Amino acid sequence: MEKINLVIVGATGAVGQEILKVLDERNFPVDRLKLCATSRSAGKQINFRGNDYTVEETTLASFDGMDIALFAGGAASKQYGPAAAEKGVVVIDNSSNFRMDPQVPLVVPEVNPEDVREHKGIIANPNCSTIQMVVALKPIHDEAKIKRVVVSTYQAVSGAGMEAIEELSAQTAAVLQGSDAVAGVFPYQIAFNLIPHIDVFMDMDYTKEEWKMVKETQKILHDQSIAITATTVRVPVYRSHSEALNIETEKKLTAVRAKEILAAAPGIIIMDNPAEKVYPMPLFASDKDDVFVGRIREDNTIDNGLNLWVVADQLRKGAATNAVQIAELVVEYGCLMKKQ
Amino acid sequence: MEKINLVIVGATGAVGQEILKVLDERNFPVDRLKLCATSRSAGKQINFRGNDYTVEETTLASFDGMDIALFAGGAASKQYGPAAAEKGVVVIDNSSNFRMDPQVPLVVPEVNPEDVREHKGIIANPNCSTIQMVVALKPIHDEAKIKRVVVSTYQAVSGAGMEAIEELSAQTAAVLQGSDAVAGVFPYQIAFNLIPHIDVFMDMDYTKEEWKMVKETQKILHDQSIAITATTVRVPVYRSHSEALNIETEKKLTAVRAKEILAAAPGIIIMDNPAEKVYPMPLFASDKDDVFVGRIREDNTIDNGLNLWVVADQLRKGAATNAVQIAELVVEYGCLMKKQ
Repeated sequence: MEKINLVIVGATGAVGQEILKVLDERNFPVDRLKLCATSRSAGKQINFRGNDYTVEETTLASFDGMDIALFAGGAASKQYGPAAAEKGVVVIDNSSNFRMDPQVPLVVPEVNPEDVREHKGIIANPNCSTIQMVVALKPIHDEAKIKRVVVSTYQAVSGAGMEAIEELSAQTAAVLQGSDAVAGVFPYQIAFNLIPHIDVFMDMDYTKEEWKMVKETQKILHDQSIAITATTVRVPVYRSHSEALNIETEKKLTAVRAKEILAAAPGIIIMDNPAEKVYPMPLFASDKDDVFVGRIREDNTIDNGLNLWVVADQLRKGAATNAVQIAELVVEYGCLMKKQ
Repeated sequence: MEKINLVIVGATGAVGQEILKVLDERNFPVDRLKLCATSRSAGKQINFRGNDYTVEETTLASFDGMDIALFAGGAASKQYGPAAAEKGVVVIDNSSNFRMDPQVPLVVPEVNPEDVREHKGIIANPNCSTIQMVVALKPIHDEAKIKRVVVSTYQAVSGAGMEAIEELSAQTAAVLQGSDAVAGVFPYQIAFNLIPHIDVFMDMDYTKEEWKMVKETQKILHDQSIAITATTVRVPVYRSHSEALNIETEKKLTAVRAKEILAAAPGIIIMDNPAEKVYPMPLFASDKDDVFVGRIREDNTIDNGLNLWVVADQLRKGAATNAVQIAELVVEYGCLMKKQ
């Protein structure tokens, strides 16, 4: 396989660190590696495959001679993404900056890999809560056509970055000691609490996170007719998001058949044996690349209803793993751009 | 108001302790008070309104001369409930032992107070997750007739008693120190985790907790046509359960109108101002008697859809407060039984 000159922007953050682990585990064919971040993190040393790399402050020059740029998230891709693409670098962006741009494919490799071929320099990585949901929805949609999804999420603090992970620890320790929990990243204490508010409030009092689950899913599945309504909630869990999905399909799907097709689908591991207390939980999903599906039940309150419980590591499949999988597809499909 | 001879069975547990607080706060007219528990807790001293009471082991004689018995939960009501009722004591039972018995009213005072009048000696207190849901559903059902509810719960550990509360603390401290969390009350570690399994698994792989939300709601609302599908999940929160409700009604209900009728309904406090980050959370609901409703949004994926986020203190409105309110109704309605 062709060796790739790769730049990671945001290499010192929670997602950036996970990208490095995933690249190594999956033997991604790296030739030159460049690690970039904001000026605050420049100068840090990070080891990858036995070599130490010094983190550089991201500038336009960071992209010179690179084949692929993985942007871990945040505002950096807005500033540098289009210019990097102009230089012939394929940008894979984990932020929400370009996801709904009609020129930008929004890709989950198990669901719509072919969309990678349509890129014009930028490919977007979907929102974490969307990724694990569409991986579970795709085989059901193919088999029975999904009409409507009601989803309630249970989202880990890792979705808000490393500071959020530290905040959960610090607040938890404070509460156990009888002190006040200090909120910084989140609007309220998250330790031993739930916050039904992720990202900003928008139309009809839904949050941006809730709208992302609607719009991104429709784009990834190429089907504007799928109706989705979401309630997204932050929970005091370090990493791995969980989702309760209630699905209405056009065709009847028994629980037995749903298990069969989910088990056969890529990227999914079924954990569903109530008698043995086997079901997905954040505790088991963390540090894994798969989407775990369980509590698969027919919902007889409608003609063709199904309930699922879906758990995946937000930093892995919800971010780093999906981005690296996209990079693998770019190489496999020969979708690198010509160097200027 | 008539003064009542009152016995509390299970007085030393999490719910029993809360019942004593609520009786005092609501100035319940207690004449003689007897505190009972298993032999393990007999001999303990508990203070109520300035007097010390010695906890007795529950026996049949415990009910002699009593007017009302409040059973805090567990197996005791199965053993002593019918016999106590035979003695002329009105039994108010927080366990699930008699809830679905057609002879036993299942009462939420804000919803079906009149059912108290039909009692034959035993009145059942519903399951905690049911109580807060029906308080929110009732005004909507009256206004627009509910056809279907999809509910996902986020349930605190207090629902599993005092040992569960201690287990969450012990496990959390262990995880923060890098030690192993030891599971005892729950099947798996609950600290920084979620467990999609409450009570035993039953028909169609739904748990008993999930079926309770279906069957109890239909009984309390006197309407078998309301379709409910539930996914119940334990979360690492000390007390106060949260629920994401997706509701389909026969008549259209705008979000504005839903807020109006919920605000006017008994036992409900609306917390719904996204611009000011006002929404219900366990942190705010704990130690309060009300049901908090927020995130009130129209769901346009169906003709008449509504999303709500409902939070209430599991030990308060979900157990102790509701039981004491039932006792108040028994007194108010003159539904005490004749002494033998």
